[in-house]
Amino acid sequence: MKPRFSSQNNYNKKKMARFLKKHGAKYGTAPGSLIFVGDQRVEKTEVEAIIFNPDNLQEFKAQEVAQLASIHIPNYVSWINIVGLHGVEVVKQMGEYLNLHNLIQEDILNTNQRPKFEEHDEHIYIVLKVLHYNKQKEMLETEQLSLVICKDTLISFQEIEEDVFGPIRERLVRPTTKIRHRNSDYLAFALLDAIVDHYIFIIEQFGEKIESLENELLEQPKNSHLQQINEYKKEINFLRKTVRPVRELASDFSKSESELIDDQTFPFIKDLQDHVIQATEAIEVYREMLNDQLDIYNSGLSNKLNEIIRVLTVFSVVFIPLTFLAGIYGTNFEHLPELKFRYAYPVFWVALILIAFGMITFFKKRKWL
Amino acid sequence: MKPRFSSQNNYNKKKMARFLKKHGAKYGTAPGSLIFVGDQRVEKTEVEAIIFNPDNLQEFKAQEVAQLASIHIPNYVSWINIVGLHGVEVVKQMGEYLNLHNLIQEDILNTNQRPKFEEHDEHIYIVLKVLHYNKQKEMLETEQLSLVICKDTLISFQEIEEDVFGPIRERLVRPTTKIRHRNSDYLAFALLDAIVDHYIFIIEQFGEKIESLENELLEQPKNSHLQQINEYKKEINFLRKTVRPVRELASDFSKSESELIDDQTFPFIKDLQDHVIQATEAIEVYREMLNDQLDIYNSGLSNKLNEIIRVLTVFSVVFIPLTFLAGIYGTNFEHLPELKFRYAYPVFWVALILIAFGMITFFKKRKWL
Amino acid sequence: MKPRFSSQNNYNKKKMARFLKKHGAKYGTAPGSLIFVGDQRVEKTEVEAIIFNPDNLQEFKAQEVAQLASIHIPNYVSWINIVGLHGVEVVKQMGEYLNLHNLIQEDILNTNQRPKFEEHDEHIYIVLKVLHYNKQKEMLETEQLSLVICKDTLISFQEIEEDVFGPIRERLVRPTTKIRHRNSDYLAFALLDAIVDHYIFIIEQFGEKIESLENELLEQPKNSHLQQINEYKKEINFLRKTVRPVRELASDFSKSESELIDDQTFPFIKDLQDHVIQATEAIEVYREMLNDQLDIYNSGLSNKLNEIIRVLTVFSVVFIPLTFLAGIYGTNFEHLPELKFRYAYPVFWVALILIAFGMITFFKKRKWL
Amino acid sequence: MKPRFSSQNNYNKKKMARFLKKHGAKYGTAPGSLIFVGDQRVEKTEVEAIIFNPDNLQEFKAQEVAQLASIHIPNYVSWINIVGLHGVEVVKQMGEYLNLHNLIQEDILNTNQRPKFEEHDEHIYIVLKVLHYNKQKEMLETEQLSLVICKDTLISFQEIEEDVFGPIRERLVRPTTKIRHRNSDYLAFALLDAIVDHYIFIIEQFGEKIESLENELLEQPKNSHLQQINEYKKEINFLRKTVRPVRELASDFSKSESELIDDQTFPFIKDLQDHVIQATEAIEVYREMLNDQLDIYNSGLSNKLNEIIRVLTVFSVVFIPLTFLAGIYGTNFEHLPELKFRYAYPVFWVALILIAFGMITFFKKRKWL
Amino acid sequence: MKPRFSSQNNYNKKKMARFLKKHGAKYGTAPGSLIFVGDQRVEKTEVEAIIFNPDNLQEFKAQEVAQLASIHIPNYVSWINIVGLHGVEVVKQMGEYLNLHNLIQEDILNTNQRPKFEEHDEHIYIVLKVLHYNKQKEMLETEQLSLVICKDTLISFQEIEEDVFGPIRERLVRPTTKIRHRNSDYLAFALLDAIVDHYIFIIEQFGEKIESLENELLEQPKNSHLQQINEYKKEINFLRKTVRPVRELASDFSKSESELIDDQTFPFIKDLQDHVIQATEAIEVYREMLNDQLDIYNSGLSNKLNEIIRVLTVFSVVFIPLTFLAGIYGTNFEHLPELKFRYAYPVFWVALILIAFGMITFFKKRKWL
Repeated sequence: MKPRFSSQNNYNKKKMARFLKKHGAKYGTAPGSLIFVGDQRVEKTEVEAIIFNPDNLQEFKAQEVAQLASIHIPNYVSWINIVGLHGVEVVKQMGEYLNLHNLIQEDILNTNQRPKFEEHDEHIYIVLKVLHYNKQKEMLETEQLSLVICKDTLISFQEIEEDVFGPIRERLVRPTTKIRHRNSDYLAFALLDAIVDHYIFIIEQFGEKIESLENELLEQPKNSHLQQINEYKKEINFLRKTVRPVRELASDFSKSESELIDDQTFPFIKDLQDHVIQATEAIEVYREMLNDQLDIYNSGLSNKLNEIIRVLTVFSVVFIPLTFLAGIYGTNFEHLPELKFRYAYPVFWVALILIAFGMITFFKKRKWL
Repeated sequence: MKPRFSSQNNYNKKKMARFLKKHGAKYGTAPGSLIFVGDQRVEKTEVEAIIFNPDNLQEFKAQEVAQLASIHIPNYVSWINIVGLHGVEVVKQMGEYLNLHNLIQEDILNTNQRPKFEEHDEHIYIVLKVLHYNKQKEMLETEQLSLVICKDTLISFQEIEEDVFGPIRERLVRPTTKIRHRNSDYLAFALLDAIVDHYIFIIEQFGEKIESLENELLEQPKNSHLQQINEYKKEINFLRKTVRPVRELASDFSKSESELIDDQTFPFIKDLQDHVIQATEAIEVYREMLNDQLDIYNSGLSNKLNEIIRVLTVFSVVFIPLTFLAGIYGTNFEHLPELKFRYAYPVFWVALILIAFGMITFFKKRKWL
Repeated sequence: MKPRFSSQNNYNKKKMARFLKKHGAKYGTAPGSLIFVGDQRVEKTEVEAIIFNPDNLQEFKAQEVAQLASIHIPNYVSWINIVGLHGVEVVKQMGEYLNLHNLIQEDILNTNQRPKFEEHDEHIYIVLKVLHYNKQKEMLETEQLSLVICKDTLISFQEIEEDVFGPIRERLVRPTTKIRHRNSDYLAFALLDAIVDHYIFIIEQFGEKIESLENELLEQPKNSHLQQINEYKKEINFLRKTVRPVRELASDFSKSESELIDDQTFPFIKDLQDHVIQATEAIEVYREMLNDQLDIYNSGLSNKLNEIIRVLTVFSVVFIPLTFLAGIYGTNFEHLPELKFRYAYPVFWVALILIAFGMITFFKKRKWL
Repeated sequence: MKPRFSSQNNYNKKKMARFLKKHGAKYGTAPGSLIFVGDQRVEKTEVEAIIFNPDNLQEFKAQEVAQLASIHIPNYVSWINIVGLHGVEVVKQMGEYLNLHNLIQEDILNTNQRPKFEEHDEHIYIVLKVLHYNKQKEMLETEQLSLVICKDTLISFQEIEEDVFGPIRERLVRPTTKIRHRNSDYLAFALLDAIVDHYIFIIEQFGEKIESLENELLEQPKNSHLQQINEYKKEINFLRKTVRPVRELASDFSKSESELIDDQTFPFIKDLQDHVIQATEAIEVYREMLNDQLDIYNSGLSNKLNEIIRVLTVFSVVFIPLTFLAGIYGTNFEHLPELKFRYAYPVFWVALILIAFGMITFFKKRKWL
Repeated sequence: MKPRFSSQNNYNKKKMARFLKKHGAKYGTAPGSLIFVGDQRVEKTEVEAIIFNPDNLQEFKAQEVAQLASIHIPNYVSWINIVGLHGVEVVKQMGEYLNLHNLIQEDILNTNQRPKFEEHDEHIYIVLKVLHYNKQKEMLETEQLSLVICKDTLISFQEIEEDVFGPIRERLVRPTTKIRHRNSDYLAFALLDAIVDHYIFIIEQFGEKIESLENELLEQPKNSHLQQINEYKKEINFLRKTVRPVRELASDFSKSESELIDDQTFPFIKDLQDHVIQATEAIEVYREMLNDQLDIYNSGLSNKLNEIIRVLTVFSVVFIPLTFLAGIYGTNFEHLPELKFRYAYPVFWVALILIAFGMITFFKKRKWL
């Protein structure tokens, strides 16, 4: 793992236009123009290559795309991984090297791409998002991953060096793993599988938070819960926007008739498709759960207020006639006979207490208290 | 029925991440890795086998999968039932014995599987959830059931020994039942049918609770009702998540062209499909009913509050001018002529009563009271 | 019309689990088991038969199914009507007589059946619900009707003897009607048509109630309206659940390629389909109307409360400073110069009145009053 | 234009069961029975005929359908228009004359028909609703129009003589118009086009009202707005119910393979279809707009109330401690030293004012005022 | 860029019937009638032509359509751009020159057209809306663009001269761009691509506003936010109505089998389709976000009010018994023993303070304060 470009100076961008990134310089250019759209997230574009067959595995760090030609060995499968999409030149050279359509090169560079699966004559192009949870900003972020499946070669384009692929690298090192005995199509599947597994991992974590929020809500709704529900809602919407198109991608993948995909790989793609469907269904469940929680929050809050208001109103109302009567006997009428009676004052108190009791009994009977 | 693994120590997990179980150790492993995902729910994995033909039936308890080979007799149908999925080794041996694809073995062990129907060359794989109502926790729970239909053999994988299949066992014992005269496909259907019947049984019970809640709500909405509605809503969502994919499963089953399924079995599968559709429709009806009940609850509550507030406000308002007048005649102005009149006090009372009556009449006329 | 089984002892079951009837004894039995699921609603199962051709018509009351064989005459169409589904034996005998699949016999006996159209080799099976408005309980009820179309014979299975078919019987008696000149398929259509017409008749009646409720609501919302809206909502949901699957049934019917259906009958089935679509659309319209009415009710109610609260609050607020001033001059300070002025009291009154007017003017200007 | 049957005696029926007209006498009759369902809206059924070719045009008023035979001239196109559907006899004669299926005759007479397009061997049957805005009742009304396209002849059945077709008649008179050079299929299209144009015209008018209501709402929500929103909602629902099935009708029309429709007419039908889609989309937009307006109204109203309540509550609260203090110094304790101080009264006032200012400052700081 | 027709006199039309423009004079005319529907937005209709091949490019400003014939040179591609649709005559002449169907000419002139893609024998007709943000009126506006793709020629019809095409013109000038080496189909794609890019640009800008509004809302909801949310909602609805049908258009375009479209252009059209899908998805995301914001606003507002009301009510309630007691000792009973005690007054104060403290403690314990 290499050091990453610091993103601390982006901190104040929090929650800004995450759902649709700015095209900026891109707007108005010709289709197929190779312009990078996105934020530079690593300092320098790097090219790594791993070539392997069941018996051997070698790693390279290429300085230039031109060196790649010399790396290729017959009967080996190559995985070329390019990190840092701002390096337009590298993408261009790769494009020429692999004979990629201009539009694909453009798509690789535009980090705003919608996930899709595209079959071409000599290669397959797959683009989707890798999800990360940024703990500092407490929000989800995406990185775009492009895969080009060629004969015996898989090229991947990443924005940042990502640890989602760590397990794949580990498996590659071990000679007995299936990944070492298969071709570039299986390797592509393995990468997609790791990404989708990471989706599910993130959904699980959100799910736990959301389910535990529900318990808190039912006990005592607080103001902070409203903000939390809205925060989660936005993240779930972001998840949904990221994961949903992958469903279509997986379906297209599983129906592909390209010769680049081995028949033995299809059951695995079908399995991938199942996982994506499971992920999207879980997202829908949590979306509905959050909507229900908003209802619980609102009902709970208004229940609480209603109770307070009811009790206090009844309390005030009990005192109203008492205060009125005190007012009556505070008047200065010259001829106010009650004031002169010997036991007027204790009788007055008894009357007040009786009135108060009568009212409370009445309210209790009516179930107002 | 055997004793079950105590789940009391799980009690405090109540309502935690039931909608998506944790992958835990699974995350990042290769597809096809045989790792158990879920909670161990029985102490020891057990293998039971029942072999039968119209004339005979024998029961076995195998210690090892290896023994199964010896059990098989030509012209008999075998039902092998494995209870306890944490026994990875047993699943592996069964997989080798039956020549199951690695991914199927993985699916059997992952209790997080989405219900599905998969047709392979030599067997059919079906996975779905069995529903239980856990009375202690007052919530629904699921157990995963995997079925592998082979020629003359049905293998079922359960998390716990389940009494949902009790009636099937009873029918198997009797030599005249249809189940004894048919093959493994009909047995698989019979198990599915028992599960779906149990779905309907559980939906019925919820339905009754929900319909009776409605009557209570219309009489007098209480705080506890809100919690109940939310509780039911969550259970209904859980039911829905469990039952809905089975609709697809049943549809795939009914359209299967596998040779393992006898033509005579199809009308029964069609019938199963009808039951699943009925179950999902009933779930939708109860979901809507609960949403309507939330509306009733909120309307009823605010109606009640409104009435209290209205009556009390009117009551207070009637006293406001009376108290004000008492205040006036409580002032200490030296030249306040009314105070000295002979009948000032009784006249004052008459005035107060007239004002009060006037206001009440006015409010009644305006339908405020 | 025969006397019906008294349902008065069911009165207290009102509103209980109408949306999903209890399977009861049925649960856990083998598929195809002939067990009656539902409430017994007539005292004794009866078998009626009408045989007719354009020239002749004869009615019979059979004691046993065995007699039916003797009734059948070549070139006559027979309509056999069985009333009372609790008579499992009769259904079984009919099943044997007509060579019906076990599952169909089971469906006939399970009054919980979802409406459907099933084509078999030698007969067509149709099941749907007949709607009745039970005036005593003020709610809709359903009765299940099963139709089996065979060559020259139509068998209908009813829970109770139903007057929905009265007009059909009348038309059958007259020799010139189309129904007398056609076969069992047209007779089945005629029965379905009568049922769907009755649906529309019931929807119309609800529609009128709902549309007139709207006028009342707009004038003056009352507490009773909330209950009424909820009552109607539930009935409309019940209607919907009953009528919607019939749409599918009619569509399957119109696309049937069975030889049992004459080509001349198809335009009539198409017409039936139009009526069902019209019925379902009307139900959707009334559903939305009820939802809108709930909004109107809530808005109207809170409007009314708001007005009361606003006026009363303003009224109270006007008196607050007045009462305060009265309090000031009720204090017993020894050196309170105003109290000794000659015209202090009238000036005090003038001040109070000016303050009150000032406040009212202010509130009116701000449109608070 | 002829005088119309007075509908003033229907005035008190306003808003009654407009969404589903009563079948009345129709209920329980045989399918295909010719019974008029609806309100008689013209005094006498009339038959008009226009025959034309590019060179000539003649108008007739027939007394009986029998005369129509004599009117027909080869190489002329005839448009026969029947006004007043209560004349069952005329429809019957037309049906016999054109050899129409019984069910079509029934549909023509049932003004409750759902819009549809039906292709038969020798004619095409189209039924839909013409919309009118009844200014007196301030509501939309529909009239049913049936069209039968035959070779060289178009027959139209109307409930009332309608000016929606005025422009068509004018175009027919002019010999250069396309309508004069085409056949009955184009004439049918022209009539449908006029009706759909009139839909759009009415939607436009509602749209303007709705969009201007929004501006009023944002300025100052009033009680009358609630009623208006509900009124518009109901009319929009009525529009929707009328226009939506026409979409399907137009789609069926455009896909027709009948020989009665000239190839040259199809681009026009496609155009018609575009207009209907535009109309339904506009209706959906306005429906959503009205829902949003209800939200605006409710939010606006509660905003206004909140403001009043907040200000008044704060106002009352400021006086509460002041009045309490006045009460304290109104007590008659013998030993109440403050009362005897020389400057007690002015100091008392200063204290009151300070308290009031302090509270107001506090409330302002907390943004409560 | 030419000076534009001043639209200042339209200022007071703001927010009027933008969702459905008035047909006005159009209503009731024959289909295919060439009548301009819309507002005149430029002073004079102008015809510009650019002809180019990879080597040369020439620009013309034609006075009349007749001149166009002389402009055309073999092996050149022509782009004829007509600005100002009120010039019915120009459209008519172009129609004759290109042999366009009458209905297409009508569609070009009706600025109320729904976006669509129409394939004809010798040309392709595309119509859609160009979006502008009118800063003066703070609202979105649309301009209709019609494209006719012929062999070697593209004709575009605009309401106003639009700078959305600026980048295209710049690219055309440079001889190395792809646009110079392709035919009219690619030019049409380039124009559509520029329009869709502009859609995305506008959605981005709205998106940023909406996402930043959310932050403000969560801090402190204000009355002005309600109006803003409603304003944005209306604009988003307008965007949606404009962009959604383009999805269908792009899909039809990508499936076209016309010979006018070169095979090499299809990948670009596919790319265009991706962009439109992305745009519509972003619109849906922002629509939902606005709905969520309305919920946040309402919850936030009622939270704030609830807090104020709660605190103030508790405050008032604390004073109620105090004021009552002051009233008691303000009564003028002759025999009121407490009044004469030596330390009655300080004891009275202590009692008041104790009561107040007791109540506050009670309210705090109940979490009411």
